[in-house]
Amino acid sequence: MSHPQTLFHQTEFHGPSVLRSRRTTVSRSTAHAQLRKLKETGRYECFSLKKQPIYDDRSRWPCPAPVYWDSDVAKWLEGACYLLSDEYDAEIDAAVREIVGMIRGAQQEDGYLNTWFTIAEPGKRWTNIRDQHELYCAGHLIEAAIAHGNYYKNNLLIEPIEKYVKHISTVIGPGPDQKHAYPGHPETELALLRLYTATGNQTAYELAKYFIEERGNQKGQEGMSYYDWEAKQRGDSPWLHPDSYQMHDSHWYNQAHAPILEQKSVEGHAVRAMYLFTGVADLLCLDELGIKSYVHKDKYFEALSGLWNNMVDKKMYLTGGIGSMWQWEGFGIDYFLPQGSDEGGCYNETCASIGVIMLAERLLHLDLNSKYADIMELCLYNAVMTGLSLDGTAFTYVNQLASSEADGNRREDWFDTSCCPPNVMRLFGCLGGYLWDYGGSVKDAYVNVHLYTTAKVTFQVEDQQIVLEQKSNWPWEGNIMFQLQAPIFVAVTVRLRIPSWARNQFTLTPSYKAAKLENGYLVLPPPYTAANRAFSIQIDGFKPRFISPHPYTNQKTSTLARGPLIYCVEDVDNPWEQDHFRNVGIQSDSEVTEKEEEIDQIGERYVALRSVGWIRKIDDRAESKSGIEPDSSLPQTVMTEKKDLTFVPYYLRANRGGRGHMRVGLLRQ
Amino acid sequence: MSHPQTLFHQTEFHGPSVLRSRRTTVSRSTAHAQLRKLKETGRYECFSLKKQPIYDDRSRWPCPAPVYWDSDVAKWLEGACYLLSDEYDAEIDAAVREIVGMIRGAQQEDGYLNTWFTIAEPGKRWTNIRDQHELYCAGHLIEAAIAHGNYYKNNLLIEPIEKYVKHISTVIGPGPDQKHAYPGHPETELALLRLYTATGNQTAYELAKYFIEERGNQKGQEGMSYYDWEAKQRGDSPWLHPDSYQMHDSHWYNQAHAPILEQKSVEGHAVRAMYLFTGVADLLCLDELGIKSYVHKDKYFEALSGLWNNMVDKKMYLTGGIGSMWQWEGFGIDYFLPQGSDEGGCYNETCASIGVIMLAERLLHLDLNSKYADIMELCLYNAVMTGLSLDGTAFTYVNQLASSEADGNRREDWFDTSCCPPNVMRLFGCLGGYLWDYGGSVKDAYVNVHLYTTAKVTFQVEDQQIVLEQKSNWPWEGNIMFQLQAPIFVAVTVRLRIPSWARNQFTLTPSYKAAKLENGYLVLPPPYTAANRAFSIQIDGFKPRFISPHPYTNQKTSTLARGPLIYCVEDVDNPWEQDHFRNVGIQSDSEVTEKEEEIDQIGERYVALRSVGWIRKIDDRAESKSGIEPDSSLPQTVMTEKKDLTFVPYYLRANRGGRGHMRVGLLRQ
Repeated sequence: MSHPQTLFHQTEFHGPSVLRSRRTTVSRSTAHAQLRKLKETGRYECFSLKKQPIYDDRSRWPCPAPVYWDSDVAKWLEGACYLLSDEYDAEIDAAVREIVGMIRGAQQEDGYLNTWFTIAEPGKRWTNIRDQHELYCAGHLIEAAIAHGNYYKNNLLIEPIEKYVKHISTVIGPGPDQKHAYPGHPETELALLRLYTATGNQTAYELAKYFIEERGNQKGQEGMSYYDWEAKQRGDSPWLHPDSYQMHDSHWYNQAHAPILEQKSVEGHAVRAMYLFTGVADLLCLDELGIKSYVHKDKYFEALSGLWNNMVDKKMYLTGGIGSMWQWEGFGIDYFLPQGSDEGGCYNETCASIGVIMLAERLLHLDLNSKYADIMELCLYNAVMTGLSLDGTAFTYVNQLASSEADGNRREDWFDTSCCPPNVMRLFGCLGGYLWDYGGSVKDAYVNVHLYTTAKVTFQVEDQQIVLEQKSNWPWEGNIMFQLQAPIFVAVTVRLRIPSWARNQFTLTPSYKAAKLENGYLVLPPPYTAANRAFSIQIDGFKPRFISPHPYTNQKTSTLARGPLIYCVEDVDNPWEQDHFRNVGIQSDSEVTEKEEEIDQIGERYVALRSVGWIRKIDDRAESKSGIEPDSSLPQTVMTEKKDLTFVPYYLRANRGGRGHMRVGLLRQ
Repeated sequence: MSHPQTLFHQTEFHGPSVLRSRRTTVSRSTAHAQLRKLKETGRYECFSLKKQPIYDDRSRWPCPAPVYWDSDVAKWLEGACYLLSDEYDAEIDAAVREIVGMIRGAQQEDGYLNTWFTIAEPGKRWTNIRDQHELYCAGHLIEAAIAHGNYYKNNLLIEPIEKYVKHISTVIGPGPDQKHAYPGHPETELALLRLYTATGNQTAYELAKYFIEERGNQKGQEGMSYYDWEAKQRGDSPWLHPDSYQMHDSHWYNQAHAPILEQKSVEGHAVRAMYLFTGVADLLCLDELGIKSYVHKDKYFEALSGLWNNMVDKKMYLTGGIGSMWQWEGFGIDYFLPQGSDEGGCYNETCASIGVIMLAERLLHLDLNSKYADIMELCLYNAVMTGLSLDGTAFTYVNQLASSEADGNRREDWFDTSCCPPNVMRLFGCLGGYLWDYGGSVKDAYVNVHLYTTAKVTFQVEDQQIVLEQKSNWPWEGNIMFQLQAPIFVAVTVRLRIPSWARNQFTLTPSYKAAKLENGYLVLPPPYTAANRAFSIQIDGFKPRFISPHPYTNQKTSTLARGPLIYCVEDVDNPWEQDHFRNVGIQSDSEVTEKEEEIDQIGERYVALRSVGWIRKIDDRAESKSGIEPDSSLPQTVMTEKKDLTFVPYYLRANRGGRGHMRVGLLRQ
C-alpha cells in the first residue's frame, strides 16, 4: 500500500532513537516555531482574504512571495495533523481549526480556492500555470485535507477541497474548450491520487492521469506546447522567461520538454522532478490496491527506472542531495557534482531529498529492492536531517557539501520562499509510514522492513491483528531485535533490508539456513516467523569507511561514512581551519577511531570520528603566471603538516557555533 | 606606439615560417572563401539596402542574424586591406571598392549608417543599445575605414565614417538631452581611439572616453542603469532578457555591472570584456603618443592589471582560451575550467583569444613585461591558430580542450553569427604589428621583440632608418639570428623576450656579460648592438614538457607542451580510442620522443610527440549503485593496458579527418 502519509499512525515510535528524538523536537518545538513564523509573516491570515501591503509588492516575478503562501500554510497544516495524532497540543489544534475555518471562508462560489488570485490578481486565474504555482498550492491543500480528515474524522476540509478539485476539472482537461494544461510545479498529481485513494474521488483520479499523460506534449494546445500557448495568450514575448528558466524555451526546467515516457534523464528543478515522478509511481501503485490505473504500467515503470538510475548513478551527491545547479535549483549534466559554490555549484534543496524519499517509497511497492530503501535512508539521515537544527527552530534550504566564503555553513529560522521548513515538519510527522510496508492476507501476510529504529507497527489482515516491534540503537549499532505478535494461523513473512554498505555481512538469531536474500531483503518465511516470534539481526558495516564519488565527477575526494551516516568536518571541532577545508586531505587507508559524544542540548548521543589528515600546500608561484610552465614549477599537491581531524555526522553540522566552515569530501591523494 | 593594426606594414614576413605560411593561406585562400560566403549569404549586398527575405525572419531575438552583418562585412574589409598591402589581388581589390561604394550609398542624410535599422527596423535606431550591436557595427566600420585609408590613401571610407561618428556623438553623450549610453558589445571604444590616433578626430576621442567613463554607472539615466532605462523606454518587462543574460539583471554579461574602475574580476561575455579592456588600455596608451588621456591613468592601469591577473591566473585555459560558460560565452567563477561539454563547460571562442592578443599588446606598451607577451604568443599559436583550418577555408568558433559526443572536434565553413572567421583573417592581416614594438629617438631608439619568426621591420626615428631582421625556425627551434641596420650615430637598444617556459635558459652570441634581464626581456643596450650588428640568441625550453592546470580546477591532468605549443591527442593518430580520450592517462615523468612530420596539404613541417600512456578502467559495479559503499567497492582508477600515444600541436587538430575525438589534458595519477 502506498501513501505512507496516511499510514504512519499505524506505527508508534518508541524511544530512545534519533528518529524518536527528532520527531519529538518537531512536535514540541518546530510546529510552534513555524506557527509563530506563519503569523509574523502574514501567511497565517492569508485565507482570511484580507489584503496585506505585501500583495502590492511586485519586485519578484513571476512569483511575488504570497503566491506560495497557500502551500506554506497547507504544509504546516498537514504536518500539524500528523503530529497531533502522536501527541495532542491545544495550541496547534486551535490553530488548525482556525485555519480550516478561514480556508472554508476563502472558497469562491464556483469552488475556486487560491488566495493570491482572489486577493491580488482576481482577473488572472489560470493564466500562468507554468510559473505561478496555482495547481501546486491546490495540491498541498489536498494533502492537508486528507491529513485533516484522518485526524479530525470530519469533512470540514475535504469538502471544500473536493469542490475545488471539481472546479479545476472543469477548467483543465482534454475537452475542446478546456485548457490542456499540467502543473508548472508538479505536486498536484500525487495529491490527487492520494485523494482518490482516500475517498474514491474519480475526478481526482482522472485529473491526475490527465496531468501525467498530457505533460510534455509539444503540440497540446493549438499545435503548441501548453506553456508557449498560455504565454501567447498573455501577450508575453516568447523570450520572456523566469530567471530560473535557463533559456526562453527551457521547458526541461519543469520536466515539460517531452512526454514523461520519452524522458531519458532527470532534468530541471529537482523538487518538481521528484514530486512528478512520485505522482507517476502513485498511478502505477493503484494496481496494488486492486484499482486499474489504465496506463501502460510497464512502459511507465521502465521510464521511472531509467530516470531513477540516471539520478542515483550520475546526479546524486554522497549525502543523498540532488541538484547541482543554483540557477534552476536542479540537475546539471551527468557527473557534474561540485561540492560547493566555489567549485561551480551544489544546491541540494532539503525538499528535493524529501522528494527522493517519497519517490523511493513508492518504487519499493512496485519493485521491492533494497537499492531504493538504501537511498531513502541515505536521504533521511543526511540530506534531509541536516536541514533541521537540533532545537527544531532553524533550517537550511540549500545543503552543500562544502561551505565557501560566498555560502557559509549556516541556518535561518525562515525563508522568503519557505517550502523546506514545513516540509521537514510534515515528513517527520508521517515518518512511521516509511519504516515498513505491510499487508497481505491471512494465508500470506507480510511486513517489509525498510528502515531500522525502535518502533512498533500494528495492522490487520482480514480482521486479524499483526504487531511487529523492532528495537535497536540504529543508526549507531547494527543489532535489531524483533518481536512479532500474530494469531498462529496467520502466515507472516518478514523481509529485512540488508543495506548495501553491509556488504551482505549480517547474523540472524536464531539462525535459519533456508533464509534467502532477495533483492537486498532477507526473507524470513512463515515457518521461521512461526517458530521464532522473537528474533534479531546483527547487521555489520558500522566500522567507519571511506567513500568517494565516481571518477567522472573529477572529485578526487574521500568522505568518511559509518552505517547510513555521512560525516563532515566543521571548524568548531577543527578551529585551526581558515579556508573551508579546501586544502585538507585524508587518505583512504588512514586509521579512524570512534569517540562517543553527547549533544548537551538534547541529551542525544552520537559517534564522532577521528583521524589524521594533511594539508595541501600550493606553491605561491602559481599565482600571476599562466599554466604554460612545466609541472615542476607548477602548484604542487604537497602533503605537509599532519593534522588531527574530528568528523561529525553531516546532520549535526551548523548546530554548535563556529565560523561556518564545513566540508564532506576531503582531498584524496 | 599602439595599434599594431596600423603598423603591420612596417613588418615584412619572410619565409619559411608557420606564421608566413598561415598568412599566405589567409591571403590566397581565406580571403576568397569568405568573400564567397559573404556573397552566398546576402551579407555582401547588405549595404546596398535592398531588402532580403531574411530581414523578415524574427525567429532570433534580440538579434536577428542580419543585425551583425555590417560588422562581418567590415571585418572582412579591414582584413582585405591589410592583406592587399602584402600581396595585391585584383578580385579582392574589386570587392573592396564595390563594398566601399555601397557603404557610402547606405549612409543616411543625417550621417546614420547601419543597415539593419535602415532596412528592417527604421523606427528603432538607438532603442536597444544593450543587445542590438548598433555601436559594435559602427566600431568595425571605423576599423575598416582606417585600414582602407591606410591602403588606398584616400578618404572614401574615412569620410562617411567620420560623419557617422559625428552623428553618434549627437545622440549619445553627457548632455541633458542625450542618451547616457555605452556599447552593449564593446569594440567601439578601441575603434574610436584608433580613429583619433590616425586622424586626430577629437569627437572620436571624446566619445570613447565617455563610453569608458560612463560604463557601469548604475544611475546614469534618470537614476537608473542606462540599460534598465532603455528597456523601460521600450516598454519591455524588466524581466525580459536575452538567453545569454543569465538573470534579468545580469549586467555583468557586458561588463556593465559596475564602473570599470570598480571591477575586480573579469566577468561575462569574454569577447566583450577583451575588446572593452583593450579600449581602456588604448586610452592609457595615448600618453605614450604625447597626448594626454585626461583619465586617472594609474587607477585605470591598476584596474586593468587586476583584471588581467584574475583572468590569466584563474580563468584561462592552458591553450590561452577564455570563457568556460556556454550560456554567456564567457567567464565562469575562478578556477572553473572544465575541458569540455561533458564536464560542464568550455567555450573559448576564437574571437575571445584574439581579444586577449589585442589586450596583451596594449599592456606591453604600458608595462613592458614578458608575462603579457607570453600569453599573447600562447593565444596566437594555440587558442587562435586552432580556429583556422590548414587550407584556410574552415573555422572553429568554440575551442574546447576535449571533444565529447555532444561537441565533436570539427570545423565549419561559416556560422550564422560569423565573427570568428573574418576576425582570424584580419588578425593574420596585421600580425606584423604584434611581433615587435619600436620607436624612440636617435639618442635612444629601441626595438622590443615580443614574438619570434622570420621577418624584418623597417622604421624611422627622426628620419633615420632602422632595420631589424630576425630569422628562426620558431616555434620548432629556439635559435634566432638577428641583423640590425642603423646609422652608427643612432643608439639602438634591442630587447628580446625570454619566454617563461625557457626558465631563463638562453645563450646570447656574441655573449655579453653586462646584459640584463628586465621583466622577462633580455636588454641589449647600444654598446652591444653597435658592436654586434649580427647577433643571435638560443632560447631553451623546446624539450617536451608536461604542464597542468591549477589544483583548484579539480583537473588532475597532464598536457604536453613544447616551446609555445600545446599538444593534444586526436583519434586520427590514435584510432583505437572510442570515448574522446576520457579515460586515457599519462604520467608527468613519461619518456617523450619527437618525430618530425610533414603536412602533405601545405608542405609545412611539424614535430609530433610520442609517449606511452595508460587506460583507466572503471569498475562496472559503479553503475546502478549509489556512492555510499566503501571505496574498495567503488570505481577505481586502475591503470591498465599501456597505450602508445601520438600528440600533435593543438593548432593542427581537426584537419586530418578522424571521428572527432580529441583531448588536451590527459589523466594524471
